[in-house]
Amino acid sequence: MPSLPPAEIGAPFSEIDTPALIIDLDAFERNLDAMASAVGQLGVRLRPHAKTHKSPVIATKQIARGAVGMCCQKVAEAEILVAGGVNDVLVSNEVVGGRKLERLAALARHARISVCADDPVMIEQLAQAAERAGSQIEVLVEVDVGARRCGVRPGPAATGLARQIAGSRFLSFGGLQAYHGSAQHLRTPEERRAAIANAANATTETLRVLNEAGFRCRTIGGAGTGTFELEGASGIWNELQAGSYVFMDADYAKNVVDGARNRRPFEHALFVLATVMSTASGERAVVDAGHKALSNDSGFPSVRGRPDLRYHRPSDEHGVLEFDSVSSRPAVGDRLTLIPGHCDPTVNLYDWYVGVRGFDTPDARVEALWPVAARGATT
Amino acid sequence: MPSLPPAEIGAPFSEIDTPALIIDLDAFERNLDAMASAVGQLGVRLRPHAKTHKSPVIATKQIARGAVGMCCQKVAEAEILVAGGVNDVLVSNEVVGGRKLERLAALARHARISVCADDPVMIEQLAQAAERAGSQIEVLVEVDVGARRCGVRPGPAATGLARQIAGSRFLSFGGLQAYHGSAQHLRTPEERRAAIANAANATTETLRVLNEAGFRCRTIGGAGTGTFELEGASGIWNELQAGSYVFMDADYAKNVVDGARNRRPFEHALFVLATVMSTASGERAVVDAGHKALSNDSGFPSVRGRPDLRYHRPSDEHGVLEFDSVSSRPAVGDRLTLIPGHCDPTVNLYDWYVGVRGFDTPDARVEALWPVAARGATT
Repeated sequence: MPSLPPAEIGAPFSEIDTPALIIDLDAFERNLDAMASAVGQLGVRLRPHAKTHKSPVIATKQIARGAVGMCCQKVAEAEILVAGGVNDVLVSNEVVGGRKLERLAALARHARISVCADDPVMIEQLAQAAERAGSQIEVLVEVDVGARRCGVRPGPAATGLARQIAGSRFLSFGGLQAYHGSAQHLRTPEERRAAIANAANATTETLRVLNEAGFRCRTIGGAGTGTFELEGASGIWNELQAGSYVFMDADYAKNVVDGARNRRPFEHALFVLATVMSTASGERAVVDAGHKALSNDSGFPSVRGRPDLRYHRPSDEHGVLEFDSVSSRPAVGDRLTLIPGHCDPTVNLYDWYVGVRGFDTPDARVEALWPVAARGATT
Repeated sequence: MPSLPPAEIGAPFSEIDTPALIIDLDAFERNLDAMASAVGQLGVRLRPHAKTHKSPVIATKQIARGAVGMCCQKVAEAEILVAGGVNDVLVSNEVVGGRKLERLAALARHARISVCADDPVMIEQLAQAAERAGSQIEVLVEVDVGARRCGVRPGPAATGLARQIAGSRFLSFGGLQAYHGSAQHLRTPEERRAAIANAANATTETLRVLNEAGFRCRTIGGAGTGTFELEGASGIWNELQAGSYVFMDADYAKNVVDGARNRRPFEHALFVLATVMSTASGERAVVDAGHKALSNDSGFPSVRGRPDLRYHRPSDEHGVLEFDSVSSRPAVGDRLTLIPGHCDPTVNLYDWYVGVRGFDTPDARVEALWPVAARGATT
């Protein structure tokens, strides 16, 4: 059973129990608007990644601002998005295994479903599942454009898979998935430009071979929050899959902003509210948020507005705050706002978003409690 | 809403969907028996840590084998244990904040509840909450015996808190919490012995001052799976709080076994079952278990029975397997059994345990589906 929410709607900020996953609703809505405006200027489609937020409520807000649908990584996430009213979902990932393919094919009777593939056996099984379900599934061939994870090598390999897909009455060839995940967190604009230029070359070469074989791509998908302006301006990608922009995390804040703009386009909008639970040592403060409240895979959280406090040495349920001067020492009961190192797996630890309006003001109040509906949707 | 379970009871092992959190029930039961036998020989009480498993079902099995009750880290965990029939729970942690103290005091009307404290303000608020609820709560004073986290310094500081506790009609002084968390994963027996010897000295000195002031300790609690034999044999600790022994993780496997015994007392009993979802690169295999399926804070998982495969470069939903020889390369659809680097936060990612009987045999079948009832119980 899911946990009870850590606050009630209408409650003042001070009454939210901790640790809690907080959305600054004003910053969050500015992020949604900023991305809608950016893709409008770029003239490309936006299909935001729901792996970040796992929430049909948030998906609906993205679609209301022009997103063409959602993408996600897991069949279970797609099921929850469709159950929440999203009618166009791309599983931007390979789906392997009979039970998962059967679920995906069944889902395609209730929404427009696309999926990625890089293997002929998977495509064959997907076609059989769609035939049994009597449904139609669009397939993007994933190309490894630099992430060194899934996907066929750039060039002719995609054509054989496209032919196989097009040969099934129950599948349709949709185009290419060309996502360069590891480029998102390259620190300098030069590194990111070079990585996406390489990805563009790999995609162009693959498209050339596909076109020669007579295949047209409705969709060239990819991009994330760190590089979407590059893919969007390339003339190659036409559907961007950024996700983290809604929240932004401490790791993204380490990316150096491109000199061509004078500020970051997106703001931190997701926080973990924590309470100081011990200062008995005199030398450190301990907060009630450790590995089970924060995913520390991309570095530790920063403490919002308190550069004098450094979070480190997390254990399962504790984090230690270090400080240089005794005047920085928080007191037991003090509440601190942590900016997660990595939003996506942090969100996946919680059952509830606590949406706060007027976040930085004395009138800050809980306006919304949204379930992290696809939390734990790993299959 | 929790995810659907990834299998049905009675299903063969091959039909479990992935990623899934698997218990080898035979190994798990041997671990339970081995600990019951060990504490029996040591002549101390066992109060296993439910932070590991978050499951009243497993707690009940521990109590049936002689455990005096459970400990946990969070009020929300205690609530779920009590709701699941456990009637003696120690929150082996500081509890700070009015709402949490109110819940703890209410819970103490329905079960025997103890809690740790290291701060006079918390004790005052706890006493007030217990008075309002009309309940009785036992308090252990936490002493920092080397973990450098919560707890007062060894020596006289505990006596003032004991006096404050004893001065409330609604609280009772129960003794000391003396847990050396960071000693559990020291790699050599010599390091672990030295750390627990220091913790023993710190505890003895604190007890001496307490005894001089007329305070008796019903409980000296602490110890974990890595060191419990040392605390248990010390003559100081009388209630051991080991938790990980039920499952054992890859990190514990790195501890060097004490030469005095010829084998590890506990076996790996918890696994993450994963599926190979891509081998398109030819150079690597990708499995469907990343940060959202495994907590990698204490190192990456090992692949059971496959020392030729190395898990690395996890992203949110993927893990990459490297191998030296093409003959090691798994095929798409192959299923691999991962031994988590750290069980506790890995368990916290799942809604369901899939209990398998005959784990290593061709007849392996799903015998039990147990909810990870306190998953996400962070408050």
